[in-house]
Amino acid sequence: MSITLGELATQFGCELVGDPSLAISSVATLSSGREGAISFFANTAYVKALASTSASAVILGASDLEKCPVPALISSNPYLTFARVALALYPDEIMSPGIHASACVADTSRIADTAHVAANAFIDSDCDIGEHVYVGPGVVVGPRCRIGNQTRLLANSTLVQDVTIGLRGIVHSGAVVGSDGFGNAMSSEGWVKVKQVGGVRIGDDVEIGSNTTVDRGAIGNTVLENGVRLDNLVQIAHNVHVGEHTAMAAMTGIAGSTTIGKRCMFAGRAGSVGHVTICDDVIVSACTFVSKDVIEPGVYTASFPAEKDKNWKRKAARFRRIDDIINRIKALEKKILK
Amino acid sequence: MSITLGELATQFGCELVGDPSLAISSVATLSSGREGAISFFANTAYVKALASTSASAVILGASDLEKCPVPALISSNPYLTFARVALALYPDEIMSPGIHASACVADTSRIADTAHVAANAFIDSDCDIGEHVYVGPGVVVGPRCRIGNQTRLLANSTLVQDVTIGLRGIVHSGAVVGSDGFGNAMSSEGWVKVKQVGGVRIGDDVEIGSNTTVDRGAIGNTVLENGVRLDNLVQIAHNVHVGEHTAMAAMTGIAGSTTIGKRCMFAGRAGSVGHVTICDDVIVSACTFVSKDVIEPGVYTASFPAEKDKNWKRKAARFRRIDDIINRIKALEKKILK
Amino acid sequence: MSITLGELATQFGCELVGDPSLAISSVATLSSGREGAISFFANTAYVKALASTSASAVILGASDLEKCPVPALISSNPYLTFARVALALYPDEIMSPGIHASACVADTSRIADTAHVAANAFIDSDCDIGEHVYVGPGVVVGPRCRIGNQTRLLANSTLVQDVTIGLRGIVHSGAVVGSDGFGNAMSSEGWVKVKQVGGVRIGDDVEIGSNTTVDRGAIGNTVLENGVRLDNLVQIAHNVHVGEHTAMAAMTGIAGSTTIGKRCMFAGRAGSVGHVTICDDVIVSACTFVSKDVIEPGVYTASFPAEKDKNWKRKAARFRRIDDIINRIKALEKKILK
Repeated sequence: MSITLGELATQFGCELVGDPSLAISSVATLSSGREGAISFFANTAYVKALASTSASAVILGASDLEKCPVPALISSNPYLTFARVALALYPDEIMSPGIHASACVADTSRIADTAHVAANAFIDSDCDIGEHVYVGPGVVVGPRCRIGNQTRLLANSTLVQDVTIGLRGIVHSGAVVGSDGFGNAMSSEGWVKVKQVGGVRIGDDVEIGSNTTVDRGAIGNTVLENGVRLDNLVQIAHNVHVGEHTAMAAMTGIAGSTTIGKRCMFAGRAGSVGHVTICDDVIVSACTFVSKDVIEPGVYTASFPAEKDKNWKRKAARFRRIDDIINRIKALEKKILK
Repeated sequence: MSITLGELATQFGCELVGDPSLAISSVATLSSGREGAISFFANTAYVKALASTSASAVILGASDLEKCPVPALISSNPYLTFARVALALYPDEIMSPGIHASACVADTSRIADTAHVAANAFIDSDCDIGEHVYVGPGVVVGPRCRIGNQTRLLANSTLVQDVTIGLRGIVHSGAVVGSDGFGNAMSSEGWVKVKQVGGVRIGDDVEIGSNTTVDRGAIGNTVLENGVRLDNLVQIAHNVHVGEHTAMAAMTGIAGSTTIGKRCMFAGRAGSVGHVTICDDVIVSACTFVSKDVIEPGVYTASFPAEKDKNWKRKAARFRRIDDIINRIKALEKKILK
Repeated sequence: MSITLGELATQFGCELVGDPSLAISSVATLSSGREGAISFFANTAYVKALASTSASAVILGASDLEKCPVPALISSNPYLTFARVALALYPDEIMSPGIHASACVADTSRIADTAHVAANAFIDSDCDIGEHVYVGPGVVVGPRCRIGNQTRLLANSTLVQDVTIGLRGIVHSGAVVGSDGFGNAMSSEGWVKVKQVGGVRIGDDVEIGSNTTVDRGAIGNTVLENGVRLDNLVQIAHNVHVGEHTAMAAMTGIAGSTTIGKRCMFAGRAGSVGHVTICDDVIVSACTFVSKDVIEPGVYTASFPAEKDKNWKRKAARFRRIDDIINRIKALEKKILK
């Protein structure tokens, strides 16, 4: 795909500085650019890379224009404009419609004529697969799933059962959506399984990362609202409700029945215990878990970053004797403040 | 499946309060109940929901009976009785026996006549697949596996090799059981793989969550005893031994050669280092890892829950200067207590 | 496979103590040894097991020879020699060459004559599959992948696209390599996907654990250099660069664009934030994450091991009042040191 710089400026509402006929055909970093590549500048740490960029054009803010040695698109949000340009330059491959001979589809399921069902895919009973849906090789779609138009289920992902996905979703490889939640009741003979009978309801424009797991509700649904983004190896337990446009980086884990607001962000290996409510616009830092309701937007943290082992070990040993610290202060206070 | 309340009372040994002919056909939460649904009450936080429940019947303790506006089953453990009722109301689907035409089964493997082998499944050599076993679509069963009666291997799960599973087990989608443990010996040219030659032995009534990994032993077996329950994205390393009825919530990780007792519980993202022994009846809190032998039952913890970033950062900074705290106390003590 | 002790001594450069014609056919621990088994002794904790070993021979250091009741191979690094002996005793099964009838291979891909493509595998367009490569059942190899000689892709693993793997690699079951990195730009209507257009470049002798995820680069490649070892459930984000012979234990997570040196070791559930550089020979302790550049080799730590819940809770509460500790010290200092 090749688009002129002038077309990009028009399409994405940018001021153009330079030759509108310049052909753009790829994206690049500032330093990896080649002829025909467009890059972006959004972080002053890269100002030297901008000055010596080998890209043919750069997307940047108006105030950075003078540092740019090549044609430019001016944007108030260069990274967002870059994202949109990249989507235009690299459209999703249009898969030819049809069901591969090696795929198995139950008679009671409806597959849209424009859908692509790849080799060795399996679609169980009572499913509805929408227009332009892509069902990749090795994908299993269990009974009673409904997949909205243009959604893509990538290779070897699994929808276990009773999963509804909206429009334009992406389920990455190895993800498992709709498996049983972890419900067990202790008896005198050991654990008795608590049958999980709910499903998963997923809105539009939701992306689910590789090897991520989203459990079905115990009763009722686990819910991911529109625009939710889950990275790889994330765990969403039964009956969790994730609000619109909330994003979770890799290895985040949310325990059962927790409700999360809109536009929250969980950094890597963040998480929450079960049965709590987290309001909108909460950011949970890396390796931090929420243990109770959060009612105020903002950043929440409880993790220590690595330091030299010897230093950490000494401090940790002192922390383990924090009772002694308090006692010594008390003794001093008694002596002084008596 | 529809069962009368009277039949449920008889079957599960409950006192019945209300019409024994009431037909029960589904489970529900107290607030999501519909006609024919049965719910349970086990947490006083839901007392309002009980008073206004839309369920047709509720399982509860004798002392809560007066708060219940609908027919009731009285149980000393309402959640456990609920679990048993749910299993009765939602029996596992009986799969028709047989091997799907697209499945591949090695000649040297025995598949019971009552087993169901789904589309695109693969069963390698020298396996033994028991009565009423379900092998889901895309499942791979490597060489020398033995699967006990009524065990279910769900879609796209993998038993790599030398895995023995007892009766009534469940391996959820994407789980990988029997892959190589992480054994490496450093040489002057880099890591040399330590060949893993053991297997995995799994007892009866064991459940393994989605995308969970259980490695084969380096030498000898990795073992999960009867009744073990593993949630999603759990890691069990080589030669770990997990005792009966121990449960591990999602993202728990157990390093190699660790032995865990009976009835232990690991909360989310808990874990243990390798080569330690943990006694029976130990509970490890969320985001906490065990670093040495545990010889006393009880709860073990070492995690801080999230707080406002600004507050945490200040405290963490002070912790990093804990040496200074000690030194200032020492200086004061020298002055005062001399 | 059976090899005489004499042959093993010659092949691996060990001094032999005992009968060179002794046939060795298996490996064992010191205590699980049977006739024909060889074990190793490298940890003084096992000195009793050595004295009573049931193995037919033991690999050990010269200074331990007198404690050994059976024939021995003397090595300056017994564990490494053991690893090499095990590889000799248990050679990888040689798979018969050919493409299974149920596998699908795109016309534009080249499969070496000696490669084995198992049942229900799928190889997309423009791939190059080298000599003696093993493509297991249910494996999906997406477009434009190049797999070096003798590499093995185990059952149900997925290479999404644009993945290059060198010689003798192993991708374990359920691993996903080459899926999209987590790139999102916020707009007024929610997240806009940042198209990921890079690939993954993997060197020789690299092992990738079960259900591990390695994302493709956003622009340019994610790189694992020669000899890298990743355990299960590891996350490698887009544009991470992992240096030669670096090993990561299970559940380690590395965020995007981080560069890691050679011979580093990450213990279980370790990790790093994104956009940092870690030098060679760094060890990151269990449950510890790196938050900034590391320029000095050594061990880095920031985790507290479990202790009794009651004790931990008391200390944690005192930590939360660390401001009060400081203030009380200040008050004392004011009084005393005025």
